[in-house]
Amino acid sequence: MPLPPDATLADVGEFGLISALTELFTQGEHVLIGPGDDAAVLRVKTGHVVVSTDLMVEGRHFRRDWASAEDVGHRAAAQNLSDINAMGGRATSLTIGLAAPADLPAAWALEFARGFADECALVGASVVGGDLTRSDQVVIAVTVIGACTQSPVVRSGAEPGEVLALFGRQGWAAGGLAVLGRGFRSPRVLVEAYRRPEPPYDAGRVAAEAGATAMIDVSDGLLAEAGHLATASQVAIDVRREAFEIPEPLQAVGAALGADPLQFILGGGDDHALLATFAPDTVPDGWSVVGEVTEAGEDGPGVTVDGAAYDGPTGWTHF
Amino acid sequence: MPLPPDATLADVGEFGLISALTELFTQGEHVLIGPGDDAAVLRVKTGHVVVSTDLMVEGRHFRRDWASAEDVGHRAAAQNLSDINAMGGRATSLTIGLAAPADLPAAWALEFARGFADECALVGASVVGGDLTRSDQVVIAVTVIGACTQSPVVRSGAEPGEVLALFGRQGWAAGGLAVLGRGFRSPRVLVEAYRRPEPPYDAGRVAAEAGATAMIDVSDGLLAEAGHLATASQVAIDVRREAFEIPEPLQAVGAALGADPLQFILGGGDDHALLATFAPDTVPDGWSVVGEVTEAGEDGPGVTVDGAAYDGPTGWTHF
Repeated sequence: MPLPPDATLADVGEFGLISALTELFTQGEHVLIGPGDDAAVLRVKTGHVVVSTDLMVEGRHFRRDWASAEDVGHRAAAQNLSDINAMGGRATSLTIGLAAPADLPAAWALEFARGFADECALVGASVVGGDLTRSDQVVIAVTVIGACTQSPVVRSGAEPGEVLALFGRQGWAAGGLAVLGRGFRSPRVLVEAYRRPEPPYDAGRVAAEAGATAMIDVSDGLLAEAGHLATASQVAIDVRREAFEIPEPLQAVGAALGADPLQFILGGGDDHALLATFAPDTVPDGWSVVGEVTEAGEDGPGVTVDGAAYDGPTGWTHF
Repeated sequence: MPLPPDATLADVGEFGLISALTELFTQGEHVLIGPGDDAAVLRVKTGHVVVSTDLMVEGRHFRRDWASAEDVGHRAAAQNLSDINAMGGRATSLTIGLAAPADLPAAWALEFARGFADECALVGASVVGGDLTRSDQVVIAVTVIGACTQSPVVRSGAEPGEVLALFGRQGWAAGGLAVLGRGFRSPRVLVEAYRRPEPPYDAGRVAAEAGATAMIDVSDGLLAEAGHLATASQVAIDVRREAFEIPEPLQAVGAALGADPLQFILGGGDDHALLATFAPDTVPDGWSVVGEVTEAGEDGPGVTVDGAAYDGPTGWTHF
């Protein structure tokens, strides 16, 4: 259904918008009943179903002046698909709840949905249902359902003697966010990394098959996520500064903002790189070893950097 | 973890609250990994997985001065469990996203979670995951996953010659809402029906087994939902006024507010009664026949009341 270019959600109405959105979502063969009934119906094989949910709030997780609707759609999908990746699974189906002011341009919702659908297409997942309602602020609620072909990789399996390894870009999105926060638009590659992360969707399954003992995706900050692994596994993790190569755009941003570029890597999130522990001789290709797992000391489980407590920001807190 | 009675979300912090909330959610045997990892992991049997999602926004779907946190929790769970009921399935697992202002009392979130968990326990479903973040307004996003032991009952299967039947209280919540809207607190039974609906959780599966051809739960209004069945099935549905007994509390509210009490029944939602179509001789016990399915006429699929267009409110629209 073509919408007038300046139509708002109120102009188009709930059912008009749902109808326009639904057309954007192609359904995979596993979807027996897609959007439009009381519930979607999926065909599943016996095994493990993996489920995760995330909220994104305008002004907190995204700004409409910093990212296009399509970018926000990509990010909303990516951060959820990444949670399934971090279990070693593959996403199959997602639902979207969109709460939005009545004066939100309908075109924003459609562009958002287009970006969301395009990101899901990267892993062959379908948007199978959703809800749309009015609120003062744009809030996006996504739930993702996936499947594992082997045992899911949880956070609690790391053992002393193993190594911590990283797969994917890390710190780029944080660099992009810092740039945007100062009113700049370059280095463009970092701003793009913030607007549209590129989670390594195949790496999770490969890591699981290689015997990863614990895994998490870096959404809130590398040291914060390493801390989650340490706490869940009741171990200590030491991260080595020298293990990280500082990519050129992060060096440039560090110089321009007078900041240590390693801060973006150690404290930044939003790239959805994967962080996993492996027995030393089982680290798959493409993963960089960035630390070691040891017995928890007197202070209990936790993360150190080069053997000492880290005094920079380690990640994002929500309250 | 005991929380100080006047602590806010900001005081308790994201992880403190998540930890307190998680303790409230007991996990069923099908839950291999519950809250706390990147995703929950569920054991499923081969078959149909049924998924639905719903948003509730403060000031729009609930008011904190009209309902306790526990009631809001019951309602949030009930409306989602009801969507699975309306497919003829049984809910097994739910996720909750809670976006809330930093000054929300932590006790509100805990009471909400307690009500939510208690409602889920009625059908043996588990809260397997969630997300918590800050927003200007309380927004609750729930996704429910369920299973069907037989083919799911969709909206599109109604055929001319069948009957429309209703199971469960209908109009009570709308009566309660009308009462609250005028600043009253009685009849108490209606106010309670609004605050804490009692969806007929067993009736959906029974209807499916009896051969219901189309089914929906009444969340937005009986005639609106009948309209969804008519449109999806490409039929006409005629609802008969005389088929409804007006329960005494609705008669009282009608008299007090100078309204036709049938309006609450025909236009009211939120009770989550079930509306289904059956071949005339297959209507299960406890269901009331309230209308007939006929061929769509010249005006296309739609709903009439006693053979004529209805001029009252038929349900709720979101924009």
